[in-house]
Formats: sequence, structure tokens, C-alpha cells
Amino acid sequence: MTSALHFLQLARQCEITELELLQRTSALVDTLGRLIHALQKERGLSTVYLTGRAAPTELAAQIKECEQLADTARAGFDDLSSPAQGARLFSRIAYVLQGLDALPALRERIQARQKTPETSAAALTKLVTGLLAVVFEAADGAADPNISRLLVALFHFMQGKELAGQERAAGVAAFGAGSEQRQQNWLHLIEAQERCFQVFAEFAPPTLLPQWRAEDAALERLRRVGCTSAANNESGADLRQTWFDVATSRMDALHAIETQLAAEVLYQCECRIAEARQPLPVADANADFFDSFPAPAASLGPQLNRSVLELVQDQSQRLQAMQAELETTRAALQERKLVERAKGLLMARRQFSEGEAHKLLRQTAMNQGRKLSEVAEAVLAMADLLPPAPH
Amino acid sequence: MTSALHFLQLARQCEITELELLQRTSALVDTLGRLIHALQKERGLSTVYLTGRAAPTELAAQIKECEQLADTARAGFDDLSSPAQGARLFSRIAYVLQGLDALPALRERIQARQKTPETSAAALTKLVTGLLAVVFEAADGAADPNISRLLVALFHFMQGKELAGQERAAGVAAFGAGSEQRQQNWLHLIEAQERCFQVFAEFAPPTLLPQWRAEDAALERLRRVGCTSAANNESGADLRQTWFDVATSRMDALHAIETQLAAEVLYQCECRIAEARQPLPVADANADFFDSFPAPAASLGPQLNRSVLELVQDQSQRLQAMQAELETTRAALQERKLVERAKGLLMARRQFSEGEAHKLLRQTAMNQGRKLSEVAEAVLAMADLLPPAPH
Repeated sequence: MTSALHFLQLARQCEITELELLQRTSALVDTLGRLIHALQKERGLSTVYLTGRAAPTELAAQIKECEQLADTARAGFDDLSSPAQGARLFSRIAYVLQGLDALPALRERIQARQKTPETSAAALTKLVTGLLAVVFEAADGAADPNISRLLVALFHFMQGKELAGQERAAGVAAFGAGSEQRQQNWLHLIEAQERCFQVFAEFAPPTLLPQWRAEDAALERLRRVGCTSAANNESGADLRQTWFDVATSRMDALHAIETQLAAEVLYQCECRIAEARQPLPVADANADFFDSFPAPAASLGPQLNRSVLELVQDQSQRLQAMQAELETTRAALQERKLVERAKGLLMARRQFSEGEAHKLLRQTAMNQGRKLSEVAEAVLAMADLLPPAPH
Repeated sequence: MTSALHFLQLARQCEITELELLQRTSALVDTLGRLIHALQKERGLSTVYLTGRAAPTELAAQIKECEQLADTARAGFDDLSSPAQGARLFSRIAYVLQGLDALPALRERIQARQKTPETSAAALTKLVTGLLAVVFEAADGAADPNISRLLVALFHFMQGKELAGQERAAGVAAFGAGSEQRQQNWLHLIEAQERCFQVFAEFAPPTLLPQWRAEDAALERLRRVGCTSAANNESGADLRQTWFDVATSRMDALHAIETQLAAEVLYQCECRIAEARQPLPVADANADFFDSFPAPAASLGPQLNRSVLELVQDQSQRLQAMQAELETTRAALQERKLVERAKGLLMARRQFSEGEAHKLLRQTAMNQGRKLSEVAEAVLAMADLLPPAPH
């Protein structure tokens, strides 16, 4: 017959196991951040190579870096091979491995200029999207509310940075040969990344925010030039390189913040594990279960003379409070998912741009005095009334 | 280097592990249902013993049955000692074990008539509440949407049945010596159990609903007599026994449905495990990751000629869809929790009865054309504006 104290300890052990799992997943997120950063640069350089007549030397060096980081990531995946990690994470990893395996063939075709700037960028974007889905699964499974908040901030930051990376490639293509469609696409990428960074700012630890600069004068000037027809002239080739350099230095700055955020996640995991490993206070006497009242103020110090029942109640309350906090974070995320899904629906069925869809939702919410998520829910509920997606 | 196929299999294995865990927890829920049923009867018989002059023979037999079922439950707890089960579940179990350990002392005091009908019932209610919290944790952790719905139905059914059990004891006490307070308490128990059974009806499989009869003429007649002052006469003692018998046969009927529902949960676990154990279709060629389009209609039969990439995408979609469904169930539960918390706040701060609090929330929602959960959220948000709880 197992005692209450045993199950109390088992509960502690569970917490530690979950946190250690989270620590390993977070280490993987850090690795994936580096791989994504390298692939983003490969995507930018591939676009430069395909747009102009640049020699592929810088690209070749970048591919080598990607290969090394991909090996580290594969090793990281292997470290996770424990069934406690969750089916969805493993499915996402299986998807990404397919992409990594197919990379050499893609690179050969880029090298042979058998790809356009757009199809090359789209292929690498597909892989990065898969990698971000792995990060999302890792973030979604966190059982500690603080770490969960950090991972939500990190995931949105990484997504915003990915959109910034797509913007880099889109800008290179637009400076090469601007068209209204390329410029529209560029504007959309700017808007979408701003929304991701908003979520980051909402969930990130305040200490990290001062390092985060949303604005960059040189970048903004080039954006203005590139997104207006003024760029469609001979200076395009010069501006293309300037844009690539400015956008690259921005990507590096974003990567530095991302790395710090990932380090913060790992640090928080360590702290929480250390806390959970604190020995249980000594429990000497059993308070009577049926007659017990809330524990008196511990005038003898919190470590002394506490009954098992008090310990059980403390721990239970703490775990419940953590769960409630976690649900708040998840609800906030859930709201965002609703809004994203409603926007996607409007984009597919009404041929709205993402910006237009967002504006419509926000306007409707303001007019009706309702929350954005409520309007999104209403849009999804009336999906059947919208015209079908064109083919 | 581990292949995509390996991670695909790992994802499958994860699902199976989670389902087997769920199966073991569900078996425990079944055991706990039986123990709770026996404790509920012990509570009723204890009240009969303390209210009248009945000899304790029937009570003694019931205590024996409780002891046996408690041993089975303890063995069931021991079966769970794997850290994958979750910290909150183990904390709840630790709490319950304290209660089971303290039972013999409580029974001695009841035997010696050192307890009133109310304090005796309250003590056993405390233990049953702890046991229901274990069931709740088991229900909350389910990773499969169908099983999660069943467990939500089962949990609410068990909670409703527990309120019906409290009603049995309350009725015995009220027929012994009716007072306005006892009658108020009785009415509250009727109303609260009806709300639980509503949730059950919402989440239960339709096949089970025909067996579920909300009304019972004999019970309703006794409720009417007992809840009005008409019962305060010499016929009280006779009616007490009649009430106890009618309420007990109702409890037994509820228990039969509960047992069927628990069996259904176990059956669904088995089905899902069998499904997840189906071998993966043979994957012969790799579709190209970067050029692949959605899989063509499988004219060769679904088991033939499918690429690993297709398998990965199918599995991933299935898992995501399951997750979305699960979130819908959780959101529905979350809404109910909000409403319960708001009601609790109104009861504590405004001295409303549960019925009054519920009526106020519903009325406000109707007047404002808002969802009940939105009104509950608003109430919780303005908690600081309500008068503090009296002491």
C-alpha cells in the first residue's frame, strides 16, 4: 500500500520529468533557430544569385554552414526519441526530415539556374515553415506558465523574423525587376511581420524589450523606395545589394535577440528544475483529514512541523494555480489562432489581402463594440455563406 | 541519422503510449466510481443511524464493502506510479489517501454518536469530493477528443450523482427534523445536480441518453413533501425510511448508467489503441518534398504506393484535427468553469444562493444579448467592485 507521502513525491518527480523534457525541447528550439537563420540567409543569397549575375561563392559558403547546422539539428531530433514528447512533435519532425533530405537536389537546380527567384525562395520558405511548426509544437506543450509565455514570445519572434527574411528575398527580387505584384507582396510581408512582433512584445520579458527596436531608418528608406515605382530604373542593381546588406544586418540583429530569448527559456527551465528538486519539508505528524482547518501561520518557520496534509494541500494549490495561468496563456493564443483562421478564410474566399482581411475584422469589431476574436468566431461560423474558393 | 519514417513510427508509438495511459486512468475512474457509490451509501446510512435510533448493522455491512473497494482503489493508485501521469493527478491521489487513512477514526466517532448528521455527512462529502477531483484530473488529461467528451460526460454525471447522494442524506436529516435551513439546502442540491446532468446530456453518447430518466414521480412527490413544512409532523420517521429507500434506488440506477459510461470509455480506448496499432502503409518511393502537390486520389487503393511524405502529411493533418477538436471540448469546459467561478463569487460576496446567482447571470446574459460565459467573465473582472466577503 503506497502512502500519501509517496504520491506527493511522485507528483514532484512528474514535475521534474516534465521540466527536463521541456529543457531538452527548448535546447532543440535554440538549435532550430540557428538552422532557420542560416537557411534564411541561403534563401536571400540564392535570390541574389538568381536575380543578378553574382558568382555563387558566398552562396556555397552559406550552404556549407546550413549543412553543418542541419547535422546538429538531426542529432537534436535523435535526442528527443522518447515517447513522452507527443505525437504531433514527431510528426512535424518527420516532415522536416523529408525537407532536409530533399535539399541537395533543390540546390543543384538553383545552381543550374533552373529556378526563378520566386520558386527558389518559395521552396526554402516551405522548409523553414516546417521547422517553425516544430518550434510551435515544442512551445505548445510547455507545462509551466512562465516558460510557456517565453516560448509563445519566442515562437512569434521567430515567425516575425521569418517574414523579415522573406521580405529580404522579396526586396531583392523587386529591386531586380519591380512589378506591382512584387511590391504588393512586399507590403504584405511588412504588415504580417509587424503583427508577429506585437505578440512577441506582449509576451516577452520586459528586460528584453529595450533591445528590440521596431524601427530602422535605413531599412525604412529602402522599403519606401522599393515599394514605390521609383525603384524601377537602372539604379535597381545597386540598390539591390544595399537592400540585401541592410536587411541582412537587421536579420542578424533579430537573430541576436532570438538567441537571448532562447537562452532565457533554458535558464528558466534550469531554475524551475532546481526549485522542483528542493527536498520536501519534513512532515512529522498527520493533521486529521476530516477536522483540519486551513494551516495556521507557520510561526516555527515554513520548514518545520508541517503535516503531510498541509504539504499536499500547498502543492495541490500551487499546481492548480499554475494550470489556471497556463490556460490564460493558451486562451490568448487560441484567440490569435481564431483571428488568423478567419483572416485566412477571408483571403481564400473573398480574395482579400491579409492586410485587408485584418482591417475588415478590426473595423467590424470596432463598429459592433465586440472583441476581435468574437468577430473572427462569427466569420468562421458563417463560412458556408461565403463564396467558394476559386480554382 | 534517424529517418523521417522512424519519426513517423515514433509519433504512432506516442499515440499508443498516451492511449494506454488513458486506458489505465479510465480503469481507475471505473474503480473510483464504485468506491464513491459505496461511500455515498455509507454516508446515507450514517445519517439514518445518527438521525434515528436504528441499529448499526446495515451500516457495518456497508463499511465493510467500502473497505474492500478502498483496497481496490489503493491498488489502482499503485498501478499508476509512472511519472508520465502528471503531477496534478498524483497530488490529488495523495490528498485522497490522507482521507482514506483517516476514515477508521471518523467511523468510530459516528458509531459513538459523537457526530451530528450534518458533520458526519460533511466529513464523508469531503472525501468524495477529493475522489471526484482525482476523476477530474484523469478526464482533463485525455488526449483523444472522443474519449475526452466521454470523460467530461462521465465526470459531470458523477458530480451530479454525488449531489443526488448529498440530497439523500439531506432528505433523511430534513425528514428527521425539518427546518427552513435544511429545506433550503435540499432545494439547492436539487438545482445543482440538474445543472450537472445537463452537461452530461450535452456530452454523453446519444445511445446512452434513453436510459437516463431525469424524472421520477415517487422521488418528486417526496421532494415536494420534504421541502415544504408539511413534513414537520409525526409521520417524519416513516417518510424518512421511504425517502431513503426511494433515493437509494435512484442512486443505484444512476450508478448503473455511470458504470455503462465508464465501460464505454474503456471500450473507446481499446478501439483507438487497435486503430493506432494498425501497421503503417508500405511507403515505396519518396515524393519530392519541394515539388509535391496534394496527394492524388489513391486509385491503387489507399495502402499502395504511398510516399513517406504523403503518410507524414496525412498523419500530421489527423493529429492537428484531433487537437482542434480537443480544444473545442476544453473550451466548452472552460466556459463552464468561468460560470461556476462567477457564481461562487456572487455567492461569497453578495450572499446569493447558487440558484439566485445562476438566475442573475442568465438574466443579465439575456438582457444584454451576450453569452453566459461572457457575463461570467465580466463579473469576475469586476470582482474588486463587489463588497468583500463577510466573516
